[in-house]
Amino acid sequence: MLMEKMISSADEGQTCSPLAGPGSGPHNRGAVGFVLVHAGAGYHSESKAKEYKHVCKRACLRAVDRLRAGALAVEAVTAALVELEDSPFTNAGTGSNLNLSGEIECDASIMDGKSLHYGAVGALSGIKNPVLVARRLLSEAQKGKLSAGRIPPCFLAGKGAQHWAASHGIPPCPAEKMATKFSLSAYRRNKRKMEVAERVEAECYQTKRARQAAENDRDLGSLARVRAIVDCGENRSACLDTVGAIVVDQEGNVAAAVSSGGLAMKHPGRVGQAAHYGCGCWAQNAGNAVPYSTAVSTSGCGEHLVRTMLARECSTAMQAEDAHQALLEAMQTKFISSPFLVTEDCVLGGVIVLRCCKCVEDQTSQEDAHTLVEFLWSHTTESMCIGYMSAQDSKAKTHISRLPPGTVAGHSLAIEGGVCRLGNKSD
Amino acid sequence: MLMEKMISSADEGQTCSPLAGPGSGPHNRGAVGFVLVHAGAGYHSESKAKEYKHVCKRACLRAVDRLRAGALAVEAVTAALVELEDSPFTNAGTGSNLNLSGEIECDASIMDGKSLHYGAVGALSGIKNPVLVARRLLSEAQKGKLSAGRIPPCFLAGKGAQHWAASHGIPPCPAEKMATKFSLSAYRRNKRKMEVAERVEAECYQTKRARQAAENDRDLGSLARVRAIVDCGENRSACLDTVGAIVVDQEGNVAAAVSSGGLAMKHPGRVGQAAHYGCGCWAQNAGNAVPYSTAVSTSGCGEHLVRTMLARECSTAMQAEDAHQALLEAMQTKFISSPFLVTEDCVLGGVIVLRCCKCVEDQTSQEDAHTLVEFLWSHTTESMCIGYMSAQDSKAKTHISRLPPGTVAGHSLAIEGGVCRLGNKSD
Repeated sequence: MLMEKMISSADEGQTCSPLAGPGSGPHNRGAVGFVLVHAGAGYHSESKAKEYKHVCKRACLRAVDRLRAGALAVEAVTAALVELEDSPFTNAGTGSNLNLSGEIECDASIMDGKSLHYGAVGALSGIKNPVLVARRLLSEAQKGKLSAGRIPPCFLAGKGAQHWAASHGIPPCPAEKMATKFSLSAYRRNKRKMEVAERVEAECYQTKRARQAAENDRDLGSLARVRAIVDCGENRSACLDTVGAIVVDQEGNVAAAVSSGGLAMKHPGRVGQAAHYGCGCWAQNAGNAVPYSTAVSTSGCGEHLVRTMLARECSTAMQAEDAHQALLEAMQTKFISSPFLVTEDCVLGGVIVLRCCKCVEDQTSQEDAHTLVEFLWSHTTESMCIGYMSAQDSKAKTHISRLPPGTVAGHSLAIEGGVCRLGNKSD
Repeated sequence: MLMEKMISSADEGQTCSPLAGPGSGPHNRGAVGFVLVHAGAGYHSESKAKEYKHVCKRACLRAVDRLRAGALAVEAVTAALVELEDSPFTNAGTGSNLNLSGEIECDASIMDGKSLHYGAVGALSGIKNPVLVARRLLSEAQKGKLSAGRIPPCFLAGKGAQHWAASHGIPPCPAEKMATKFSLSAYRRNKRKMEVAERVEAECYQTKRARQAAENDRDLGSLARVRAIVDCGENRSACLDTVGAIVVDQEGNVAAAVSSGGLAMKHPGRVGQAAHYGCGCWAQNAGNAVPYSTAVSTSGCGEHLVRTMLARECSTAMQAEDAHQALLEAMQTKFISSPFLVTEDCVLGGVIVLRCCKCVEDQTSQEDAHTLVEFLWSHTTESMCIGYMSAQDSKAKTHISRLPPGTVAGHSLAIEGGVCRLGNKSD
């Protein structure tokens, strides 16, 4: 079942307007960039809505502050991510889900649409802001080869990543400062649930009936799941709230980033989509083969996002004429109905995307070329919290997008978006 | 500069013949599968050619043994990889390059074209056959969810991967058993070269001339590289010899795998293309959107292969009508001239690919449908060692493909291939 919505509540006086045809947005001279952030696709309770929105707002402001100071997209997107990671409410950086051993291991990546360089860290412990390590990997790679002709790494994992961070001046952070009382209590609760689930499974195996069904492990898994499903905290039945951001700067460069604590109770060493090239984020300036600059950041069930390579697929899709239709089709055919996920009973994820191009839409105004930014979000999870802001706006706009009542997460999708027109810096 | 060659030395009486139009190969009743392996794209000295060929031959035999016993493609490709990893001459498993700390950390991945499931390990120490851990991750993921509804991981890195392997019955292997006298002596030599290079760089920085040039770090890097380039052993100027294999089984299922010790003197925790989804290997059975089943395994400079996502790009390209032309164009436009690698002074990598489809080519013979396998290899490195064999053949055919004299590695390519016709099992 497909659900589509269009946002209808864009504040008057703001740069960003609901998605419509190109050129329908107001003219906004002097806007020097745009940011769209997400605090995850998963389930955001009404009681926590305010906090999620608030962190999205702050993240937008951080990015816009950098853009106004003349920073490029990569720097602005990093600033947004640091704010999102620092929130104890998001599953990234501080407050991340704990793994099976009760430790925090984070994934993060960043991509620069201008140089097409990429940096990523996986299963990284003891660093307050994993995105800063990914960012530093990206910038070190941009400098060229290391001593003796060695090629700089674009992806580091585990202890090696932690040591590399330390040797590049990124300070360690004690584990107890990154865990919150919520993440710790969720861990204890999940531990108990797993014990229950595993006991149920063991009992099943010991009965004759279970032995007959034992050929199909999934039957047993389902039985156990009915009784105990891992969760991430109060009123949250899923644990998917990876964070991310996408930015276009005054020069029209795009950048994307993503950061995640990963699934609750994951196996130590598990690396999710936030550290997978092409899966967690994607940014690509317009060039030879691509007419639009695109940036994408994803959230949701890591393995689903990895196996469908959703970030890159959405970026490719966004080269089609109608951005909204292209994303809708990509989410349906490349994600919900993906041949890579046919055995999954529900497909959980969300994306934020933007695409932009230089254009002169209004022939009568005699203005110079502007950058037209079309931005969208779509998710198959119950909800997705997003925020967006142009550098011209006085405040960020935030929104918790929800699947309409009666639709089923993992099978339906919501899609919304807007359009923003950026003026030249000299306007 | 582009170089193309066609193999012209197919042994008489063997199933596989040089690549030509579909249906041109001999009819081979009862062939129940085909394997193509590589022992890396890099530089293979004439003095070691025999050993490289020999390990490729053994790897083919291992896979074919499994195919003849009725195994599916995933099992056969795993068997080939174990043999390739066990050779002390390849940069995978035993004999892997040592990292900056003098340790072996391996990457490996495997993909099943039938289920489209995938398993990967990165920066994994202390396991003799990393591909077995990737294989086990794949098979565990195929079983469905873990207790309490948790999603099984498809990629594990570092210590976590090592612990997971142990808990799944894969025994640890002491580091001293995986290092060889060649890998240890290469490490000591590289360590000295790095010290020289870093001293040269430091001296450069201290001179006025260097200070003037210091804005461009690459100039200094180049200067140092002239004097000392990291290598991997006797007569080997590159360290790129990742191994891999691709297989089609009697049912027409494809599978692909890849395994690597990574670049010599890499930073601990560095994960290369062999563990990156879509970059190290790819396998996809024919289905809704893809007329051909395809399998790909890559080798070369990990970062180049990651950033161009070469395995998946080649798989996509192989859906075009002319396999040879499609791979040639993919290697040129998606690799050598890729917009993702414009700043690289040379682009180093190689691929083995196969594609197959069920078809009745010879209308006069009244035979049942056969599986036609077209297989190719291409590389921009100085050489690439490959081997291939159909389950009908009495022995494997091996070959060290080289760029023609006078061409430049990283800028030119070689491409060769063959065609193989598999009979029905019942023939």
